[in-house]
Amino acid sequence: MYEGEDCAAARALELVGERWSLLILRDALFRHFTRYSQFQSSLAIAPNILAKRLNTLVEAGILRTHALESRGQEYLLTEMGQSLKPVIVSLTRWGDHWIGPGPVDIVHQQCGTEVEYEIHCAACGDDVDLADVQTRLRSRQPAEYGANGIRSAGTV
Amino acid sequence: MYEGEDCAAARALELVGERWSLLILRDALFRHFTRYSQFQSSLAIAPNILAKRLNTLVEAGILRTHALESRGQEYLLTEMGQSLKPVIVSLTRWGDHWIGPGPVDIVHQQCGTEVEYEIHCAACGDDVDLADVQTRLRSRQPAEYGANGIRSAGTV
Repeated sequence: MYEGEDCAAARALELVGERWSLLILRDALFRHFTRYSQFQSSLAIAPNILAKRLNTLVEAGILRTHALESRGQEYLLTEMGQSLKPVIVSLTRWGDHWIGPGPVDIVHQQCGTEVEYEIHCAACGDDVDLADVQTRLRSRQPAEYGANGIRSAGTV
Repeated sequence: MYEGEDCAAARALELVGERWSLLILRDALFRHFTRYSQFQSSLAIAPNILAKRLNTLVEAGILRTHALESRGQEYLLTEMGQSLKPVIVSLTRWGDHWIGPGPVDIVHQQCGTEVEYEIHCAACGDDVDLADVQTRLRSRQPAEYGANGIRSAGTV
């Protein structure tokens, strides 16, 4: 059994699941914002909350600070932060489809076409049906999991 | 300019971003839990909070209730709820890589191989580099966006 505390999704959400943090990351990833003042005017967030959220993201290694020659500093996405793009893209596409279209499309910059998200299996070389994406325990395999460690669909 | 309130990612997060809601969805999607008692024993969540979260997910259209012949009811994922799988998968993979491996792999049920997540462009027919995934305004195109409506990388 996997506990909530160990789950990668739960731990990821603790870092980036807070609403303001997500909006800061959206602006950093897709609007290329780097300055405190840019986030401030975009989000209309209380200054002390914004400073706190930015610091938390820096401490987590998602943003890093870079001193400017003039004065002040900018907030740049680390590789860890850049890697959050798929999360924001999948969340946005879900919201677009099921809650109602938001104001932006997510497109391939070179050709302007909307991108699709696909789950791909390296072994089969095929796109994978969502229903066939399952979890497999890494270390322990309780009885509810099959011999290959994969929980059968419908089993509980 | 797109406002936080309109952003599909922000609105999606309002529905599913709460930590317990995400954990309920993880258990429904990957452990095929349907009963209140299953969620209760998995999550060690206060009963009134669990009932509230389940009701919110039902009201949002992500879960639906189904009366059991014996007694009580079960909570089943709607199509809207099933569609959240990519969000949980991308969040889990990010957490696995950047925070530390969680207890499960995400695999293709048929062959047991770990799945990859790819962003695909239907027009080019290619996999798309994350850096080339950008947003494009649907209705209005302020000056900061180019003629094709795509914000140039690095522009602000």
